[in-house]
Amino acid sequence: MAESRAGIYVQPTRTGVDAATVVGLVCGFGLIGTAIFLGGQPGSFVNVPGVLIVIGGTLAVTTMCFSVSEVLRTVAVLNKTIFFSGRDPSEAAIQVLGIAELARRQGVLSLQNIMESLSSEPFLHKGIAMVVDGTPGEEVEIILRRDMQATVLRHQKSANVLRKAAEFAPAMGLIGTLIGLVQMLGSLDDPSTIGPSMAVALLTTFYGAVLANMVFSPLASKLERNSNEETLVNNVYAMGVASIGRQENPRRLEMLLNSVLPPAKRVQYFD
Amino acid sequence: MAESRAGIYVQPTRTGVDAATVVGLVCGFGLIGTAIFLGGQPGSFVNVPGVLIVIGGTLAVTTMCFSVSEVLRTVAVLNKTIFFSGRDPSEAAIQVLGIAELARRQGVLSLQNIMESLSSEPFLHKGIAMVVDGTPGEEVEIILRRDMQATVLRHQKSANVLRKAAEFAPAMGLIGTLIGLVQMLGSLDDPSTIGPSMAVALLTTFYGAVLANMVFSPLASKLERNSNEETLVNNVYAMGVASIGRQENPRRLEMLLNSVLPPAKRVQYFD
Amino acid sequence: MAESRAGIYVQPTRTGVDAATVVGLVCGFGLIGTAIFLGGQPGSFVNVPGVLIVIGGTLAVTTMCFSVSEVLRTVAVLNKTIFFSGRDPSEAAIQVLGIAELARRQGVLSLQNIMESLSSEPFLHKGIAMVVDGTPGEEVEIILRRDMQATVLRHQKSANVLRKAAEFAPAMGLIGTLIGLVQMLGSLDDPSTIGPSMAVALLTTFYGAVLANMVFSPLASKLERNSNEETLVNNVYAMGVASIGRQENPRRLEMLLNSVLPPAKRVQYFD
Amino acid sequence: MAESRAGIYVQPTRTGVDAATVVGLVCGFGLIGTAIFLGGQPGSFVNVPGVLIVIGGTLAVTTMCFSVSEVLRTVAVLNKTIFFSGRDPSEAAIQVLGIAELARRQGVLSLQNIMESLSSEPFLHKGIAMVVDGTPGEEVEIILRRDMQATVLRHQKSANVLRKAAEFAPAMGLIGTLIGLVQMLGSLDDPSTIGPSMAVALLTTFYGAVLANMVFSPLASKLERNSNEETLVNNVYAMGVASIGRQENPRRLEMLLNSVLPPAKRVQYFD
Amino acid sequence: MAESRAGIYVQPTRTGVDAATVVGLVCGFGLIGTAIFLGGQPGSFVNVPGVLIVIGGTLAVTTMCFSVSEVLRTVAVLNKTIFFSGRDPSEAAIQVLGIAELARRQGVLSLQNIMESLSSEPFLHKGIAMVVDGTPGEEVEIILRRDMQATVLRHQKSANVLRKAAEFAPAMGLIGTLIGLVQMLGSLDDPSTIGPSMAVALLTTFYGAVLANMVFSPLASKLERNSNEETLVNNVYAMGVASIGRQENPRRLEMLLNSVLPPAKRVQYFD
Repeated sequence: MAESRAGIYVQPTRTGVDAATVVGLVCGFGLIGTAIFLGGQPGSFVNVPGVLIVIGGTLAVTTMCFSVSEVLRTVAVLNKTIFFSGRDPSEAAIQVLGIAELARRQGVLSLQNIMESLSSEPFLHKGIAMVVDGTPGEEVEIILRRDMQATVLRHQKSANVLRKAAEFAPAMGLIGTLIGLVQMLGSLDDPSTIGPSMAVALLTTFYGAVLANMVFSPLASKLERNSNEETLVNNVYAMGVASIGRQENPRRLEMLLNSVLPPAKRVQYFD
Repeated sequence: MAESRAGIYVQPTRTGVDAATVVGLVCGFGLIGTAIFLGGQPGSFVNVPGVLIVIGGTLAVTTMCFSVSEVLRTVAVLNKTIFFSGRDPSEAAIQVLGIAELARRQGVLSLQNIMESLSSEPFLHKGIAMVVDGTPGEEVEIILRRDMQATVLRHQKSANVLRKAAEFAPAMGLIGTLIGLVQMLGSLDDPSTIGPSMAVALLTTFYGAVLANMVFSPLASKLERNSNEETLVNNVYAMGVASIGRQENPRRLEMLLNSVLPPAKRVQYFD
Repeated sequence: MAESRAGIYVQPTRTGVDAATVVGLVCGFGLIGTAIFLGGQPGSFVNVPGVLIVIGGTLAVTTMCFSVSEVLRTVAVLNKTIFFSGRDPSEAAIQVLGIAELARRQGVLSLQNIMESLSSEPFLHKGIAMVVDGTPGEEVEIILRRDMQATVLRHQKSANVLRKAAEFAPAMGLIGTLIGLVQMLGSLDDPSTIGPSMAVALLTTFYGAVLANMVFSPLASKLERNSNEETLVNNVYAMGVASIGRQENPRRLEMLLNSVLPPAKRVQYFD
Repeated sequence: MAESRAGIYVQPTRTGVDAATVVGLVCGFGLIGTAIFLGGQPGSFVNVPGVLIVIGGTLAVTTMCFSVSEVLRTVAVLNKTIFFSGRDPSEAAIQVLGIAELARRQGVLSLQNIMESLSSEPFLHKGIAMVVDGTPGEEVEIILRRDMQATVLRHQKSANVLRKAAEFAPAMGLIGTLIGLVQMLGSLDDPSTIGPSMAVALLTTFYGAVLANMVFSPLASKLERNSNEETLVNNVYAMGVASIGRQENPRRLEMLLNSVLPPAKRVQYFD
Repeated sequence: MAESRAGIYVQPTRTGVDAATVVGLVCGFGLIGTAIFLGGQPGSFVNVPGVLIVIGGTLAVTTMCFSVSEVLRTVAVLNKTIFFSGRDPSEAAIQVLGIAELARRQGVLSLQNIMESLSSEPFLHKGIAMVVDGTPGEEVEIILRRDMQATVLRHQKSANVLRKAAEFAPAMGLIGTLIGLVQMLGSLDDPSTIGPSMAVALLTTFYGAVLANMVFSPLASKLERNSNEETLVNNVYAMGVASIGRQENPRRLEMLLNSVLPPAKRVQYFD
């Protein structure tokens, strides 16, 4: 009994950084930065008005498409793409099967003893707490699914904001370059200034391309991907908690979980 | 009783400006304008024939795709993207639940007393007026939904007009630039005029990019977004008025409303 | 009786020009023309080989995608985008309700008296003629719907031809410009010819952009839009004629018509 | 009897060239060729390495996407876009109704007399042969439909190969131009070679644009169009043969055929 | 009997290279290489920082969109596009029909004798092994289909990674070119360096176009194509093994297989 209870002790979730996002960002910008430094004049790549036009303009136009609060919420959600505390779906399934077995053998009330070890998984914790409080399984599942749905919608809206930003950033870069070109062409008196002026004009196109292709577009993809993963884990938790609340046989729960897990992640807890 | 009637007094709807649209427009054009003024010769960015070609041409071509009245209606609908009098769906739900409770306790005819306080919400006012006049709930709902549908279609058509304009504006800019380039290349006698002529030629491309990316495209997105929000609030009103007309239990109405509200906006009027 | 018969006299359909198409075409080309004339050398914008390459090439390539007869039919259908004899759906509904009331009160055969006044609406005329000849309502509706379907398919195919042309025109313009550039670059001996040669090379890109964005693409949109409007009116006629043929109550017909009319066009013939 | 049998003698199918494809190809390339010859130096438009890069490269990359046999099969199917032996659907329907009437009046075995006149229509010939051999109507239809399905799939796959080629040809043109530009820029010693080198570099872009827009893309559209037409005719044949095999009344067959024919092609064989 | 058993000896699967991929890659890069060598200075096409920016940057940004393991798995799956051990679906069907006939005549246990000859087809081997072990046909099919589904999902995800890479490679090329242009324009002192600097700047655009159009995009298409082919063969195996497990008549199996095989690949094992 002791070892079975031990088995369901929740290991602290790996709340590390999302390796792919960080490595991608660091390598990408590192390569760009190296190429710029190798060229000798890194200062010529900094142009404050250009940065303001591209970043500020993209922000302004994206905000026009949505509401201020939706854009701010997107910034807040961005940490999900860098600090990804995703538990493996298989681990989540095995953990929830362990809890279900404990509940079956020692009764639902015995779950109170493991509540504190679940505090790193607020979604699971909330569900088990409701079960221990005697909320019927069906109602627990409805409440948890409503929570999941709200999270997915929030992430989807934020991904849309990022996609719009990735669409507008190159356009703002082009607008900045056109401003620079018109200004340069209007004063061609001194040929020696043509080169530097044109370089400055091209900078906003450069900023726009970098922002869209190395920040907004990949972050939107990553946000959608991580949201799918989180939904999968939460789905496992919701099915598990509902099954515990209905006091079903854990073997039936295993079958149920395997039907939603991707093939490579299926578990075999009972032999 | 008094406090319950007080609770349903409709607070004047916040008919302020849509912060996101105004801030976005002001910031976006402010940034562009600053960049132009910093360059020293703001006058070189004004080219009346260019403005006529891009704005007039886009208008002409967009009108060809639709009818004159559809284009004019779009201009009229644009104020919806700047002055957005949207009530929060939760507030609308609570307000309608308050009215439903009043109707249940004091009878439908008592709603006549609060009619004037609803005048700022013409859609709700129209519905309650029909209920007070004794129109059956089903019929009220059909009439209100027909109104909603007409509004959505009108907004959708206007958003389509804006999207078409966003599609044609850069094309008209390109056409203007080609005209300028051909004219410039045809008279290369005086090399000193090449720069200014080319600057003027590029201006139409600039106008087209600004119009499409900073005006038409974001306004189309905002129009669709605000139309969705308005539809959601009107849907809450229609369901509420129909429920009052059918003299249903307000608790059932609360359940119904929560099924259409987005998760974050659900209400709990009765405990 | 007299005034009711008078009420159904068909006013000659407004077979005027489609204001939006004509105004759009005139304004668009007027703006372009003005910009060209202001530049001083309108002759430099005429290049017969360029016109042949872009118009002829677009026609040739579009013909390859379809058959010769489909392309010719498209040219014939184009007048639908300029001379639009569309009756308002509400007017059509009221007219058909008037005829239905007349048929109900004086019998179907009495419709013979108003046949000639319907000659400006061949679709309605054909339907009423069949009803007067004693063809059963169901059969009349099938025949009329078959006609409508054939018209819609014909218009859809023509719109597709125009869309393909709008797709190929800029490509042919690019091909023409590449030919011009290669020829110019091959003989750089006399620098003074570079400018004019390049101007000529750019002309085909200009022609392609104008053709695609100011002619083909808007005409395709307009054709689809007018086809939808015509279908709506013909649908009203088909439903009306079928109802007269079945000798139904005109009040039922009114309900039926309102279910297919867009909200803003619904009619109330009977009070 | 004689005249009825005469009526079903199959006129030799018009196996002429597909006018639209040939006229389009000839006119398109004729216009391009004229423009090149008018420029004076047609030789400057021939660049063997450029032709190899664009045609060879497009072929190589398209082959990578598919298999060697699929690409070869596409080349074989191309003749369908030039030599189009399509019979008119109405003609096919009348012909099959004639055969059906003959079979009904003189018995199925009498069809043996007209077998040789059908040899120009292998699909119909195969079907009638099976019916004469006593194969039941249902089985004949299944076999013929399987044949039709195989043909459609084969044509669809070939159209996809052409579309991919139309997608890759401009990309290969760009790659060739970039190679030429890099080579030219690397050796700017003699300014007099800049023009010709750049002309050569632009040639691959020209080849790619011509190949994609004047060959691959229109041929893909035409292949799909002709495949649809052929399927329609074969569908008429399959329905007819099945009906003959089931010894149904030819009048019923006429109704059936009219339900699949496009409105403009419907037939009235029996009065 | 001997000859029937001989007939089902599995010929070693043709695990050769995928001709189309290898020929396409070799020819494509051969053409490009030849064009570069003919230009005289192949060394000017090698630019290590440019290669790093385009390849490294594309890898970095693609990794950001997915997870590190998904990108690594894509590299591992790439060999499927070059070494394609696909058996022909018809061959697979005939082979499985041979095994089914053997099982029917000599009993399922007799299949143990041919197990080793199946070792080159692990999927079929696994299925037959389960049948010989007495696993019921339904369960074998469920397990095999779960395997197939896992493989398809894995290939689909890898194809998506390749498509994203094909999308980002040209963008990284553009970013590299912009860096080079800004650096060049910033130091225009010595006009003789303009050419070479610009050549270097264009190289990243060249790398990006080559990577996207000649590597990533065709490999993604090929991966999807080969995955479809493999699924088809595995589907034949799964249906065959399930049928053997259920001890059905092989003639019924033939009918079943023909319903999933494409028309050109249908088999007729029994006459």
